[in-house]
Amino acid sequence: MAEIPKDHPRYQSLMMRQRIIDGVKRGVATEAALVAHGRGEAFDYLLGERTHEFGWEAIRAASAMLLTAKHPMFSVNGNVVSLAGLEVIELNRENPEIGIEINIFHFTPERIKTISVYLRELGATRFLEAVTEGSVLLGDIGSNRRYMNPEGIAKADVVLVPLEDGDRCEALVASGRKVITVDLNPLSRTARTAQITIVDELSRVMQNLREQLKQDRMLPAEELSRRIASFDNRAVLQSAEKAIREGLRSTS
Amino acid sequence: MAEIPKDHPRYQSLMMRQRIIDGVKRGVATEAALVAHGRGEAFDYLLGERTHEFGWEAIRAASAMLLTAKHPMFSVNGNVVSLAGLEVIELNRENPEIGIEINIFHFTPERIKTISVYLRELGATRFLEAVTEGSVLLGDIGSNRRYMNPEGIAKADVVLVPLEDGDRCEALVASGRKVITVDLNPLSRTARTAQITIVDELSRVMQNLREQLKQDRMLPAEELSRRIASFDNRAVLQSAEKAIREGLRSTS
Repeated sequence: MAEIPKDHPRYQSLMMRQRIIDGVKRGVATEAALVAHGRGEAFDYLLGERTHEFGWEAIRAASAMLLTAKHPMFSVNGNVVSLAGLEVIELNRENPEIGIEINIFHFTPERIKTISVYLRELGATRFLEAVTEGSVLLGDIGSNRRYMNPEGIAKADVVLVPLEDGDRCEALVASGRKVITVDLNPLSRTARTAQITIVDELSRVMQNLREQLKQDRMLPAEELSRRIASFDNRAVLQSAEKAIREGLRSTS
Repeated sequence: MAEIPKDHPRYQSLMMRQRIIDGVKRGVATEAALVAHGRGEAFDYLLGERTHEFGWEAIRAASAMLLTAKHPMFSVNGNVVSLAGLEVIELNRENPEIGIEINIFHFTPERIKTISVYLRELGATRFLEAVTEGSVLLGDIGSNRRYMNPEGIAKADVVLVPLEDGDRCEALVASGRKVITVDLNPLSRTARTAQITIVDELSRVMQNLREQLKQDRMLPAEELSRRIASFDNRAVLQSAEKAIREGLRSTS
């Protein structure tokens, strides 16, 4: 791993970049993932690399939706595992009802295996993998993106799926599932399709979401349901766009 | 190479992404280059993936500056060669007075060699390489970014250096050289330090610059000098920032 001085103003961002590069070297993430990461970096930079109020709003709604779900699943791909593998495991340890399924855009059994080995190395003991045989198929998208584990996402009513492709996000929503995503680009198809879009950097989101779930766990279901009902994803996306425009203005 | 349908609305952008991924696989570009490319993609997306008037303004000034220089050099790194290797060679064929030097941020003789072999494969017959032995050193920056070929950038009064690191751009300007850069992020240190910043995607820039040089070659030096004198890089950067802000607005 390259050395990054701890006092560098962009230390956290450079650390995350190194994590995704390491993920590619290990075969967990793809080269295209690095480009996608760079796109995210540009938006995060314009957002000042911090969690905004619209991020917290979406976190609170996400926490409520996960806690009131019948069968919530956390769909993780190579980027998510590279960037926040330990945090994924920790979230599942604290919230064992939110199952983990490794599910990737370009499905190959080999890459599922590579990600699975890496998650185990990080300490994960329970998670599912998307499978081809016995898989339940997701609607109208390219065949290698359709597989779902019959005990996992196939059964899920709520799916937390950060850094997801637009087609797959649309197919999940069209299938009647509720989708919570994490996407730094408020203009992306994924951001606009999901029911809840957290516009923030993944490692910050993981930390914030864990805190929020801890706080919310004891609240009555009615209060959580009211919170979901009053959540407005369109307003969140507009606030995020505004913040990015202001990020551009403040520097000039 | 992955298949990209020609009628895809973002065909050109996806082609460029594939070129940089291929560059990494070949060892010409680094993994960090992919992240940087992604950052650029985000800005290009917000700019509508087209050349704006502020881009043309900078192209016209760049053409004038290159044509009136005593010893203009084109400093190319692994990203530039991956994204626009053929266009670099073509520009040099049409404008042989603008020499090519392979010069990279993280200097290693091996990577210089890899890029050199690739440029030759693409058909390049004349170019220089940054060297360590007998190198002239550029000012106050990290040692492996300082090397200059004594017959190339060391002698140059004008350097065209797209996709350049901020430290190295600052050192080139501090050394008294005029710097023309290409950078999709108008907020970057490189964009703010160079005398001329072309805020546009590299392959479009190469094509536009070649056209402009052809048109300008016959103009009297006084006219070109006047054009340089009236060029305002700060205004160009402000227009670019404005266009990005509007790119964000128009989608919401």
